[in-house]
Amino acid sequence: MECFKQILLFFLFACSVVNLVSSERSTYIVHMDKSFMPKPFSSHQHWYSSILDSLKSTSPNSHQENPPILLYTYDTVLHGFSALLSRAELEALKKLLGLVSAYSDKVATLDTTHSCEFLSLNPFTGLWPASEYGKDVIVGVMDTGVWPESLSYKDDGMTEIPSRWKGGCDGGFDFNSSLCNKKLIGAKYFNKGVLAANPNNTKKMYSARDTDGHGTHTSSTVGGNSVNNTSFFGYALGTARGVAPRARLAIYKVIFKEWSYASDVLAGNVGTRLGYLHNGIPWVLTVAAASMDRWFAGSLTLGNGLTITGWSLFPARAFVHNSALIYSKTIAACNSTELLSRVSFGTVICDTSESFYSQIDYVSQSNVQAAIFISSYYTYEDSHFNYPGVIISPDEGAKVINYALKGKNPTATIKFQQTFVGTTTAPVVAGYTSRGPSPSYPGILKPDVMAPGTLVLASWIPNDAVSQIGQNIGLSNDFNLISGTSMACPHGAGIAALLKGAHPGWSPAAIRSAMVTTANPFDNTGNPIKDIGFNYAVATPISMGAGEVDPNSALDPGLIYNATAQDYINLLCSMNYTQMQILTIKRSNYNCSNQSSDLNYPSFIVLYTNGTSTKSVLTKKFERVVTNVGDGVATYKAKVTAPKGSDVSVYPETLVFGQKYDQQTYSLRIYYTADQNQTVTFGSVIWVEENGKHTVRSPIVVAPMIPVW
Amino acid sequence: MECFKQILLFFLFACSVVNLVSSERSTYIVHMDKSFMPKPFSSHQHWYSSILDSLKSTSPNSHQENPPILLYTYDTVLHGFSALLSRAELEALKKLLGLVSAYSDKVATLDTTHSCEFLSLNPFTGLWPASEYGKDVIVGVMDTGVWPESLSYKDDGMTEIPSRWKGGCDGGFDFNSSLCNKKLIGAKYFNKGVLAANPNNTKKMYSARDTDGHGTHTSSTVGGNSVNNTSFFGYALGTARGVAPRARLAIYKVIFKEWSYASDVLAGNVGTRLGYLHNGIPWVLTVAAASMDRWFAGSLTLGNGLTITGWSLFPARAFVHNSALIYSKTIAACNSTELLSRVSFGTVICDTSESFYSQIDYVSQSNVQAAIFISSYYTYEDSHFNYPGVIISPDEGAKVINYALKGKNPTATIKFQQTFVGTTTAPVVAGYTSRGPSPSYPGILKPDVMAPGTLVLASWIPNDAVSQIGQNIGLSNDFNLISGTSMACPHGAGIAALLKGAHPGWSPAAIRSAMVTTANPFDNTGNPIKDIGFNYAVATPISMGAGEVDPNSALDPGLIYNATAQDYINLLCSMNYTQMQILTIKRSNYNCSNQSSDLNYPSFIVLYTNGTSTKSVLTKKFERVVTNVGDGVATYKAKVTAPKGSDVSVYPETLVFGQKYDQQTYSLRIYYTADQNQTVTFGSVIWVEENGKHTVRSPIVVAPMIPVW
Repeated sequence: MECFKQILLFFLFACSVVNLVSSERSTYIVHMDKSFMPKPFSSHQHWYSSILDSLKSTSPNSHQENPPILLYTYDTVLHGFSALLSRAELEALKKLLGLVSAYSDKVATLDTTHSCEFLSLNPFTGLWPASEYGKDVIVGVMDTGVWPESLSYKDDGMTEIPSRWKGGCDGGFDFNSSLCNKKLIGAKYFNKGVLAANPNNTKKMYSARDTDGHGTHTSSTVGGNSVNNTSFFGYALGTARGVAPRARLAIYKVIFKEWSYASDVLAGNVGTRLGYLHNGIPWVLTVAAASMDRWFAGSLTLGNGLTITGWSLFPARAFVHNSALIYSKTIAACNSTELLSRVSFGTVICDTSESFYSQIDYVSQSNVQAAIFISSYYTYEDSHFNYPGVIISPDEGAKVINYALKGKNPTATIKFQQTFVGTTTAPVVAGYTSRGPSPSYPGILKPDVMAPGTLVLASWIPNDAVSQIGQNIGLSNDFNLISGTSMACPHGAGIAALLKGAHPGWSPAAIRSAMVTTANPFDNTGNPIKDIGFNYAVATPISMGAGEVDPNSALDPGLIYNATAQDYINLLCSMNYTQMQILTIKRSNYNCSNQSSDLNYPSFIVLYTNGTSTKSVLTKKFERVVTNVGDGVATYKAKVTAPKGSDVSVYPETLVFGQKYDQQTYSLRIYYTADQNQTVTFGSVIWVEENGKHTVRSPIVVAPMIPVW
Repeated sequence: MECFKQILLFFLFACSVVNLVSSERSTYIVHMDKSFMPKPFSSHQHWYSSILDSLKSTSPNSHQENPPILLYTYDTVLHGFSALLSRAELEALKKLLGLVSAYSDKVATLDTTHSCEFLSLNPFTGLWPASEYGKDVIVGVMDTGVWPESLSYKDDGMTEIPSRWKGGCDGGFDFNSSLCNKKLIGAKYFNKGVLAANPNNTKKMYSARDTDGHGTHTSSTVGGNSVNNTSFFGYALGTARGVAPRARLAIYKVIFKEWSYASDVLAGNVGTRLGYLHNGIPWVLTVAAASMDRWFAGSLTLGNGLTITGWSLFPARAFVHNSALIYSKTIAACNSTELLSRVSFGTVICDTSESFYSQIDYVSQSNVQAAIFISSYYTYEDSHFNYPGVIISPDEGAKVINYALKGKNPTATIKFQQTFVGTTTAPVVAGYTSRGPSPSYPGILKPDVMAPGTLVLASWIPNDAVSQIGQNIGLSNDFNLISGTSMACPHGAGIAALLKGAHPGWSPAAIRSAMVTTANPFDNTGNPIKDIGFNYAVATPISMGAGEVDPNSALDPGLIYNATAQDYINLLCSMNYTQMQILTIKRSNYNCSNQSSDLNYPSFIVLYTNGTSTKSVLTKKFERVVTNVGDGVATYKAKVTAPKGSDVSVYPETLVFGQKYDQQTYSLRIYYTADQNQTVTFGSVIWVEENGKHTVRSPIVVAPMIPVW
């Protein structure tokens, strides 16, 4: 009998590779015995590639369109590789000499948070393995505190806390410091403000415990450990984990429910009016919110066989089976509980209305069994759904009404609690996300990038109602599905933590630069990202920054735009801040001899005032320094797309780097014309590597200055 | 580096050992390398016991009250043992030479069906390992058909179908024969009756598909494969599996929803009415239904800190947190939606009423947030609970009312979806279970034994409402929690299947005898089992047979009362059946020369007619043959407990068996007095093994003949 080494392989935080898997193939992890490697092969990679090539002949199609795909090779903990294989290919593989075993990658389950998947984070390539899932990066979260018993904070699989951690875990009311562990390494509360504002302060104010839910949601999104079998009442069912599931969390409770209103806490969601962005300060990362490619469904099947995948988040598995389908002009406005209660037991159709929410409330107070809401206004950004029903489009609605009126004994069946991923079009800029420019720093384009913020599933406090049935039955859950820029922000923070783990030497500005210059301005149909807040018009960088963040590309951005603390001082000096104001920020001596309003930022914005003559032509020049973080010699050429009505020139147009960390300087000049329509125009400059893979893209915006504050 | 053999251990159907586990210890499966066994040990069992003994010294208490417990030793697939160990003991164990590995027995999860646990079926000892979980036993289920897509019928872990199986899998409407597999090996439908009764027959009548749910529930209870993460809307959460999870299932659809009403099917009496199931006929096993030690809870916590574990099956995680607690004489009857709707938003207290169901309906139509129902009538046998609330006892209710009336701003918090096991008192005979005696065979004591039948979780059809919220929101689920003798019956059948697997040579009569003579007449408080149908009086064998079935004891009953087909013929002959009637049953030639009304049954019943004088004394004699199925020589002595008012004698009082399968005969004579109160009196005869572990108990009943039909 042969003896093999004991091989243990843990993919404890493996996100799904659903988006990589073809309909025919599954991911297998294949263990090989290297002693069987034939002599001619120079490396194990070569051997594994050759094995995969040999499998192609097992396919029934001789000219395969989808050959087996080698995903990753392993040569440390075990020898082998992971690959996308069909069953036939797997069987052929099993006959090979040297095979130890082949497992289906079963640990890779559907991710409930889903944003990791949607951002292509995966255990095989890119930022997750490169950063070891954010291992030993410490993320501080300033928010409403934490619910430490949430499973997202369990420390299974976490290593010992590094000695550099000097923070503490403060006990307090209903918060024993023993609740901290190797995942939740710190907890503090800063209650001076709330105590000052509330003479009748309560014991609850002496604790880092989250009494709202918001801080638990954001911190678990950044760095929550994996939790199996979570869902929002059956929707988004699967394994939940944070963006950086191996990062440590230090919680700082600075927002108290007793002090501010919940609506304040959830602020940053003022919507489509330009210029309301309130955290556009230049040294932070500002993240716009977008939708994902996920659809929460109620599947509607009519008695004639027509099936429509409606939208529903009704929080239970309602039984609506062969229910009498009712359409009547008298009730179709669905604005009278009295009228609705007069119809026989069945499913009513509600005509499109500007307020789905008032319609569902009228229906929920009637004795109707279920409802079909036709809507051209619904934005799919909210989880409120307190009655069994589905939302369908006006086109679909016309078919349903036709059947209800003309069918013989028309019926409807609705299947709830369904979740589909991979749906188009996504991302779309959220309607609620705040638009730039930042009023306080109009020379900096904000937001920086966009990330998932709509209907994000993450941990919540258990003693709160997160959904509702009818008018008075509230429902609680350990996870909540909510939307906001507050949900996009921890995605940005989590990716920054992963980048810090992969590149410990990078500054915050370098990390942000990598995220900005690799962000994707296109959606999953290959078209420019749209903005739901502007009726699905093409989104501008004022709404989404450089585009949807792309963590795997940010791992290897080619060039970065760095900035130091002194650079920020130079900016503050240029803005006529007082000495006291600057000291509040810098907390030490500073020097204003090099004041500059032109921060070395990876994006460009020019604002013209309303009073600018429609005929005037102005010019603005920017200076930038870029650092080569690719490996060795590289040459980049500028590719410019000017905003409509402007000219843009770059000098020099070619940048040559002799080695890694070489720096080069370039200038960019915008000749712009005030637009009499006062529209936001935009373009980009892309530094494209010659004979290389890197493209370094910066958005360029020319827009009217809008006075807001 | 040392090399070890690859050891794979599958406990795919391991039930929980929750009832064995102390609060400090967990079950570990320990793999040992036998080559390290020191010479002085004669066997591996001896070595392992010695290891466990040595661990006792690691305990902080020198005179341990709870020493580590050796559960099972393994010497086939692997070498080692399983044991209940504390963490300290595990750490000490890890330092031993010869240890390969020690795993926590993580597969042993809480069983949702729970009845397996409650009946002490476990993977370490007794009937489950002895029968290999019913491996290769084929169980035929005649019922409403099957929902083949239910996860209970997946064939993971099932071996190839034995060649002796000659049955088929009939395709039909919405039932492709490819749905059968190594678990669901057969499916047939017998629709002649339903076609005859329904001239307007539908396509559905040509299919074994279950359109009701009942057959899916019973067959998955008998032999369903394990399904993880099942629950009834959060209650009974865990892994579901059948009693004989490795048995094969052959489904015979003989009951059509289109023919009988669903209410008939769910009453548990359809077999009796139609002559198919649950009959008191002597050659079948008749099973009474009982409760389990499981409590579905809503935990009520008052603002003053008092916590009461109420009963609830509200099918959602309702949010009732610091809700205003309202008690008012005006509304406390909870019989007026109008009055209830006038109170402020909060939780109302409903005084005890004979109808909890009408109270909860009145409340559910009001705008009350939640309700506390005080009840002295509720029987805890039904899952209907369509509004957030809890049921509490009158004693508890008095405390809650007092607080509601006298407390300052009284509040209530209710936590739903909680399940507790190990609660007392259980089992209790179900209120709904049919009582004997059997009208058609009054000389045979029926039922035979009792098994869990109340609120049993098993698979269900997905297109049916199994619960409800409010008045018009139905909910469906893949599992249903229902009560009935129909739920007790598959427990009996599953245990019979396991016994057949462990003892392939045993006749059905032998299997039934083993279940009867080892059944337990005591509950989990050590007192005689009570009967909820008679206001918790001590249950008689007329209600529960010999008692709660004890599968592990039935594995090794010591003696059995066997019966052959000819014995049944002799009984039928004695009952003046016509030749045609007997041929219908026997289907071949028969011989009535030995007619006898005294079947060799493991129980005794004497019925006197109503007209019997209260002073008359009668006598009845029974003859019995018992077969020794213990190992080798054995001596048994009779221990008789006579029914009140009767005398019982046994001859001989000692039975000596020379070897296994020896048979001995004894007679039992009852001198009985008619009871003027017409009560059911009962006792028992127990054959107790001398210097052995077996006790063979038969109930004795003296009761009035009650005309039923």
